[in-house]
Amino acid sequence: MKIKINENFSKMKESYLFSDIAKRVNAYREAHPDREIIRLGIGDVTLPLTRCVTEAMHKAVDEQANKATFRGYAPEYGYDFLREAISSYYARHGVSVPADEIYAGDGAKSDLGNLTDIFGANRVLVPSPVYPVYVDSNLMCGRGVVLIEANEKNGFLPTPPEKEEPLVIYLCSPNNPTGAVYSREGLARWVDYALKTGSVILFDSAYESYISDGSPRSIYEIPGARGCAIEINSLSKRAGFTGTRCGWTIIPKELEVEGVKLGKLWERRQATKFNGIPYVVQRGAEASLSPVGEEECRVLIDYYRENAAIIASALEKKGVWFTGGKNSPYIWMKCPNGMGSWEFFDLLLDRVQVVGTPGEGFGKAGEGFFRLTAFGDRDKTVEAAARISSLL
Amino acid sequence: MKIKINENFSKMKESYLFSDIAKRVNAYREAHPDREIIRLGIGDVTLPLTRCVTEAMHKAVDEQANKATFRGYAPEYGYDFLREAISSYYARHGVSVPADEIYAGDGAKSDLGNLTDIFGANRVLVPSPVYPVYVDSNLMCGRGVVLIEANEKNGFLPTPPEKEEPLVIYLCSPNNPTGAVYSREGLARWVDYALKTGSVILFDSAYESYISDGSPRSIYEIPGARGCAIEINSLSKRAGFTGTRCGWTIIPKELEVEGVKLGKLWERRQATKFNGIPYVVQRGAEASLSPVGEEECRVLIDYYRENAAIIASALEKKGVWFTGGKNSPYIWMKCPNGMGSWEFFDLLLDRVQVVGTPGEGFGKAGEGFFRLTAFGDRDKTVEAAARISSLL
Repeated sequence: MKIKINENFSKMKESYLFSDIAKRVNAYREAHPDREIIRLGIGDVTLPLTRCVTEAMHKAVDEQANKATFRGYAPEYGYDFLREAISSYYARHGVSVPADEIYAGDGAKSDLGNLTDIFGANRVLVPSPVYPVYVDSNLMCGRGVVLIEANEKNGFLPTPPEKEEPLVIYLCSPNNPTGAVYSREGLARWVDYALKTGSVILFDSAYESYISDGSPRSIYEIPGARGCAIEINSLSKRAGFTGTRCGWTIIPKELEVEGVKLGKLWERRQATKFNGIPYVVQRGAEASLSPVGEEECRVLIDYYRENAAIIASALEKKGVWFTGGKNSPYIWMKCPNGMGSWEFFDLLLDRVQVVGTPGEGFGKAGEGFFRLTAFGDRDKTVEAAARISSLL
Repeated sequence: MKIKINENFSKMKESYLFSDIAKRVNAYREAHPDREIIRLGIGDVTLPLTRCVTEAMHKAVDEQANKATFRGYAPEYGYDFLREAISSYYARHGVSVPADEIYAGDGAKSDLGNLTDIFGANRVLVPSPVYPVYVDSNLMCGRGVVLIEANEKNGFLPTPPEKEEPLVIYLCSPNNPTGAVYSREGLARWVDYALKTGSVILFDSAYESYISDGSPRSIYEIPGARGCAIEINSLSKRAGFTGTRCGWTIIPKELEVEGVKLGKLWERRQATKFNGIPYVVQRGAEASLSPVGEEECRVLIDYYRENAAIIASALEKKGVWFTGGKNSPYIWMKCPNGMGSWEFFDLLLDRVQVVGTPGEGFGKAGEGFFRLTAFGDRDKTVEAAARISSLL
């Protein structure tokens, strides 16, 4: 006799995407040690934390070094100063979210994964290609996942299914990996579907700060969303917090299922299995969300946005079909001449020494597409765009 | 139609323990604004982070402020420098744990809660009185929890059940809330039971640094434990990290169930639903685990240990039965004259203005007992011990 393990783990596919990429790149480098490889595959930021953030963190470290100002356990949902800073940030962008509907955490990945705890055995709808966390965190707890295809025809922005049923729906806009951004009308269709069917939308807005064309940055810009949507946001790509860890989940007070408030379930989940984020990080996060912090972060975001524009412009000139690149740090391009994702990967590496990410790595619906990212250095991005152009 | 929520949440009892305490204390204070109340109920540290920790954190903040040294996403299981620092810390205490069996995380509470993800529908054995996380995190995912009673007769150190069956077993030594510490023989009995029955022990060693009498600080001091036990440890009470957040889980490579390595399941769980802890925190944690850091932390621990000794000595003089107080920051005393937990709480508050925690708040088995903690100021602890003595 033995205890039982969670058998659902065997349902998750092992992803070898990034290790496969590393293997091919290493093999190429060994064969051609003289060639300079440029990486546009990386999904991580490269610019440092901004000045007001690091000043706030230094100050907080000093407070933690002094008995009179030392702070122990933080509130599980974040200090009021942070929840209020987030609320003010939303208010500056025209969205009213009370501080007590905001739950600070250590990032969108944790919150998205852990939110599965509050739901029962629902059907889960996930657009594909997809950020793997949505699928894997549900498979891990035995939920049935239904993929809805994003493709060239729908501009990688799928519309709600025809069949009306209560679902847990994951949406991400601007999308990772496709960079596609829902319009107000596009999101409203999903909100209407959710309200009509008793579905709940988990809206991942981790890239909202890259939007500048008036498309919704928060799902709560859509009438009715407070009755059907949870929003998950992050400082990772907005303030360079990938290695500093802070994000938040918003659950409106009126969001309930059969009289049970989802916010209360999340509070209980977090109070049971989480102990809040570091004081030092909370002070840095607060600073990044202040008006000054937002100006400083704007410099980082604009740098990445300009990188994206450089790549997008090169593709446009060659008439290549793509999504993203404008309100997103990702460019999702169609591989030329009907090539497969990996075929194009090998071509780029062999011929011009540029590394991207094969679309197939984000699900079958990504076959024939390729992801480029805007988080690199300006000089290298310019050079890579020229190199890619030379092949198109 | 509506989606379904996780119905298991309704099985968890709402705990009003600390809010009930706060209400009674506030009511007393309003009625007696002139009396000084001393709190020995708090389970949180009060001394600041040590010098080498805050120096390391300042340095890390500076690195994060500079493009050349900036770090983005950390490895999900912690940087090698941290895993190796933890491994060295264990080695200095005579326990060999390779760095790649150590998974750094944001604290014991998160890891203990999230470890439920890797197990199936087992019976779960939890000693009572108990840290509520063990019970609630299992109820939340629908597991059957069996309580095993800790009591005066077994010194609040229960032995394995007579019935032999595969269980997931939670043990905590030094124990929260009772302060009781398992001897080598006591722990060996549990390891033998687990090996014989195919059970897995989750060993919470968050208070191990308070042990100085040679009792095991790690379950891996017990022969055979690598084949049946996961250990969860934390810097919270060792290095004052309750507001800085760092702990770790150890899963030996040979720990497997039907050919599946539990370490691999935990790796997959963390890679799917967690993105590592902040770089700044990892550098602080590394520093706290260095030989210099350990010396500095020893000063904090000795301060709290001396507080515990002051309370314990007062109780001993009055012939009061208690556990803890020697190798633990907690003192778990029997209420005098057969009083109930809350009755004694009210007596202490009314008569001598000392606040503790009624044992009943940690489960029915705690009725008739009372928890005092050693994390307060020295002067107030001395004064509180004298006040309590005057009532005994």
